[in-house]
Amino acid sequence: MSPFDLDNFSHSLIENGWFREQSDLHFPGQALQLKIKKILHYEKTQFQDVLVFQSETYGNVLVLDGIIQVSERDEFSYQEMITHLPLFSHPNPKKVLVIGGGDGGVLREVIKHQSVQQAILVEIDELVIELSKKFLPNMASSFNSPKVKVILDDGFKYLKNSSFLNESNKFDVIITDSSDPEGPAQEFFKENYFNLLYNALNKNGIVISQTSENFWLNFKFIKNLKKIALKVFPNVEFSYTCVPTYTSGQLGLLICSKDKNFNLKVPLRKLPPSDELSLFKYYNSDLHTASFVLPNWASNYLENNDNDDNNKVNYNEK
Amino acid sequence: MSPFDLDNFSHSLIENGWFREQSDLHFPGQALQLKIKKILHYEKTQFQDVLVFQSETYGNVLVLDGIIQVSERDEFSYQEMITHLPLFSHPNPKKVLVIGGGDGGVLREVIKHQSVQQAILVEIDELVIELSKKFLPNMASSFNSPKVKVILDDGFKYLKNSSFLNESNKFDVIITDSSDPEGPAQEFFKENYFNLLYNALNKNGIVISQTSENFWLNFKFIKNLKKIALKVFPNVEFSYTCVPTYTSGQLGLLICSKDKNFNLKVPLRKLPPSDELSLFKYYNSDLHTASFVLPNWASNYLENNDNDDNNKVNYNEK
Repeated sequence: MSPFDLDNFSHSLIENGWFREQSDLHFPGQALQLKIKKILHYEKTQFQDVLVFQSETYGNVLVLDGIIQVSERDEFSYQEMITHLPLFSHPNPKKVLVIGGGDGGVLREVIKHQSVQQAILVEIDELVIELSKKFLPNMASSFNSPKVKVILDDGFKYLKNSSFLNESNKFDVIITDSSDPEGPAQEFFKENYFNLLYNALNKNGIVISQTSENFWLNFKFIKNLKKIALKVFPNVEFSYTCVPTYTSGQLGLLICSKDKNFNLKVPLRKLPPSDELSLFKYYNSDLHTASFVLPNWASNYLENNDNDDNNKVNYNEK
Repeated sequence: MSPFDLDNFSHSLIENGWFREQSDLHFPGQALQLKIKKILHYEKTQFQDVLVFQSETYGNVLVLDGIIQVSERDEFSYQEMITHLPLFSHPNPKKVLVIGGGDGGVLREVIKHQSVQQAILVEIDELVIELSKKFLPNMASSFNSPKVKVILDDGFKYLKNSSFLNESNKFDVIITDSSDPEGPAQEFFKENYFNLLYNALNKNGIVISQTSENFWLNFKFIKNLKKIALKVFPNVEFSYTCVPTYTSGQLGLLICSKDKNFNLKVPLRKLPPSDELSLFKYYNSDLHTASFVLPNWASNYLENNDNDDNNKVNYNEK
């Protein structure tokens, strides 16, 4: 018998063989359930609650602190968009830093770019990398690349303690592929972090962060995050990608460049369509631009000074 | 005490105060839950199982045969896109037919077009209209318009039994806002129906249908529906819109024109941006075009002859 036999396994988010993602604090009133075939691993590390299960219809699923991070069925949407939006907006990305992303999915996308000479991943929790190698092999395969270097550290501390006085240490692109702003990832949503990112980038540098929210859900948080980013970067844009296993089916991405004249919405470099098709399941240059096109109320809300949350904008709440 | 007191109300899809949308047949292994504040109505009509509840965070919600049709919080995404994609692709839409759509949301969008002189709605289930007037007033307000005519009938039979020999009876745009292809709506996904639509349209005519699926879920059904539509219409395109309360967070739309030279992806008519902002919460002309841009595997799968379902394309299933 496996130590994680489903019938005898007890976890507050698992009932009758279904995993249930629900948070009264962050997305009250809604829950997503995935049917479990088999529990693959469960462990509380010093950083977080780590669960991996084989689902009935979404392949293997990684859950941190109760929130779905990736499922094998839909992970490529997020990994490809958070990677290729900044990399194709950059003229010649050679050195890329990934903060978080211990599953290896973003790294897998980064090293598809021939210009990239080094991809450094800073992950706080070694267990995530180990479990990914075991249960998410399609993502973790990237760890074998000679271009990849893994550092086990808190991304915030790593940036704070590294010296970027020497230009050659700086990065072309930094991708924050963190968990949500609770637990170990909370520092990634503050002004100090954006300052650290700015200092670690060379002059054409671009950063992108997952925003933990989307335009259906706590868009106020994103509006505020954009304001914080604009204190540091002259050029900040909001994009999003569709992921069925993320709350409300999508996730917002915030992309910033040091050069205020970069048009982040249009890729600076394009591959021939046949290369795009063979390299990427999700990303293409048309989708790059389309991912910045927002519904009226969302673009209006992001650009204007009113502070109504979308929950109130969207329907006639009493 | 209300006849629908939540604590004493019994329904197979309601447990501990949560509504649960789940179907082993159509989207196995996943479920969406919405927390209920209050049951507003429940009734089995001769056509379907009708449930309306006030949710904790999505406003009032209409459920037919266990499937969420609209929530007040996100309904405008679907209503606006299924309406304005065909209407802005048409040079001068005067006469519009809505099949289904008893909640009135699509009608609300249709009559925003000043060119429209008549909008006919054919709904099979009068109760849906009544409940919408009572519990979804922001959608049902359209029923008061003098341009609107409501016919209580099966849309398929209505088209079959109407004479369209006289050109003036024909429609510019027909919108199939049906429920999913089980129960009363199953005829709307067959070749015969597309023939009826074709015959009811004038020469610039455009039709759009909700596909009941999306590119994350049973995309094979959509591929097949597109093949069926192409037997009848020379020009068929696939679009989609994001709706958190629909399975996997989005819904596919199939749009067809009689004229093979119509470019349905680019609106033929555009309003000034300020009018777009004041009239529509979701739709704008950029989003019109963006809604046709698909991930690589999805466009590749739709256009090619292989028959692998997306479930197998998307991840390494054994």
